[in-house]
Amino acid sequence: MLVKEIGEQGLLSIVQGFCPSEIVGDDAAIMSVPGDQSLVITTDMLVDEVHFSDRTTSPIDVGWRSAAVNLSDLAAMGAFPCGITVALGITGDKPVEWVEQLYQGLTSCLNQYNTPIIGGDICRSSVTCISITAFGTVNPKLAIRRSVARPGDVIVVTGYHGDSRAGLELLLHPELRTGLTSDQRLFLIQAHQRPQPRLDILPKLQTLLASHPATAIAGMDSSDGLADAIVQICRASQVGSQVQRHQIPLSEALQTFVPPQQALEWALYGGEDFQLVLCLPRTLGETLVQQLGTEASIIGEIRSNPKILLIDDAEPSTEEELSLSRGFQHF
Amino acid sequence: MLVKEIGEQGLLSIVQGFCPSEIVGDDAAIMSVPGDQSLVITTDMLVDEVHFSDRTTSPIDVGWRSAAVNLSDLAAMGAFPCGITVALGITGDKPVEWVEQLYQGLTSCLNQYNTPIIGGDICRSSVTCISITAFGTVNPKLAIRRSVARPGDVIVVTGYHGDSRAGLELLLHPELRTGLTSDQRLFLIQAHQRPQPRLDILPKLQTLLASHPATAIAGMDSSDGLADAIVQICRASQVGSQVQRHQIPLSEALQTFVPPQQALEWALYGGEDFQLVLCLPRTLGETLVQQLGTEASIIGEIRSNPKILLIDDAEPSTEEELSLSRGFQHF
Repeated sequence: MLVKEIGEQGLLSIVQGFCPSEIVGDDAAIMSVPGDQSLVITTDMLVDEVHFSDRTTSPIDVGWRSAAVNLSDLAAMGAFPCGITVALGITGDKPVEWVEQLYQGLTSCLNQYNTPIIGGDICRSSVTCISITAFGTVNPKLAIRRSVARPGDVIVVTGYHGDSRAGLELLLHPELRTGLTSDQRLFLIQAHQRPQPRLDILPKLQTLLASHPATAIAGMDSSDGLADAIVQICRASQVGSQVQRHQIPLSEALQTFVPPQQALEWALYGGEDFQLVLCLPRTLGETLVQQLGTEASIIGEIRSNPKILLIDDAEPSTEEELSLSRGFQHF
Repeated sequence: MLVKEIGEQGLLSIVQGFCPSEIVGDDAAIMSVPGDQSLVITTDMLVDEVHFSDRTTSPIDVGWRSAAVNLSDLAAMGAFPCGITVALGITGDKPVEWVEQLYQGLTSCLNQYNTPIIGGDICRSSVTCISITAFGTVNPKLAIRRSVARPGDVIVVTGYHGDSRAGLELLLHPELRTGLTSDQRLFLIQAHQRPQPRLDILPKLQTLLASHPATAIAGMDSSDGLADAIVQICRASQVGSQVQRHQIPLSEALQTFVPPQQALEWALYGGEDFQLVLCLPRTLGETLVQQLGTEASIIGEIRSNPKILLIDDAEPSTEEELSLSRGFQHF
């Protein structure tokens, strides 16, 4: 059964099955926001053959990723999600099942955080595209911003970088001969298809800040790559940084898959890892890393000198500047 | 200069010029919502060659309409706008000027209501599409919903219906010989290109409700046609209605342009007039119409009998049921 065969009303009734019944059926959704919280809003568009492709991404994965991308932006602001809207432009010749699976993927990711789809739009388009707007709430005193990094802050990253890019490579070239175990292969592919927004880090940050109320945490997510995140934070905060090459955590799977230089390149510029890059005073950073164990690492330090350097204490000759231009460019 | 020539960063810097500077540059926007207000959220996607076309709509008009469509949904909930996000998927071969004019159109419409663009996304796409999410606030006691129409309520419509469809006809067939004056022609074309969300009605409704606190107003906007709006309200409220054919207000320009039967057809099923269709107790409806003068009319009444009829007291033989199926279908 194709989208054009069941028509708009048929499609709407399927899609509305994924939304809480009390919000369906008006021109807009109504939501209350607790008085001490600010609303946080982010929006992202994903387009067929640009951000996903039938070759590498099932509709369930497209849904999961679309939700995860937006929730990751909320996490990057320190905000907990409370709902998303989904606007879907779709070609008439897509199977209806594709739409159902898309929404299954969306809700699988969202249900982890009790986050409902609170509204949407569906329309015909000559290319399939999904636009999501996500809403969250944050106590404005605890918001994470790019512009508040200070010299002396350590740079903490969550999780691993480069795995998503490696997973994409495996999906694009399934014939590649690798030394990976099947678990490692799956791990890298999942990193690409099912990224996890790091909302799990927020309660720990809140606990830290509760005992250090005057402290601001700077940060963003690494959706466009680790290098991009560091450069964006430094620019917004008018500071520089030194990142220790050998302290960037790389997964065993990534290191098994490709040589060290390639692994580092993907970690810095591959993008789509959706980890958090945070800058905070050293003592707090160390406490955080202690609490999170292998889930976080200190990789460098904010400096007042505006240069953004990748350094290696053991090999000073390899010092280089991090750049934005090697990351993903949309045009 | 084409979009692909200035790249993502170039395009972003142009687009950010249309946003308040304090909100640009983080992963998401932060906004406060007053404690006694609920947040109202609506989203719409517009796709090139489906919702607009270079033949009939300049980029300024695309922008205006995209904003107006969403603000109209807020008005239909009784909510005042406080911001929108804009996700734009765009082909690389569009002139940069097209994007600038799109944002000019958006902000021209938004500035009437002091409503900022508070966030967005921009990406490459093989078809140009715009997805807008609009936020507003409403005192939840004053929200307008589809499901609260009651037998005995009168049906009030704002403005005229059918003019937008007439304007589209003039744009699609500029060679048409009509009896229209140039003012009338412009009036119909403007109705299509520059619809006005009926936010101007809300303060009057609030004043009415302040003196009748236990009253609920049912309603929605007529974006998919007057007939669709009446049918949707009746279904959501589990009631029927009788609409008086001769009380549906038609503009002089529309009546000059086409014969009465065609004018009625466009008024009922043409769509995109973005007027409000409201159901409220007769005394309040009459007061509202008195206050609004030619800007509002009572066109019928809600009945407990579930039939949704178009009637004519002078010609009982012409009674017919209003239908959804003749309205705009997306697939």
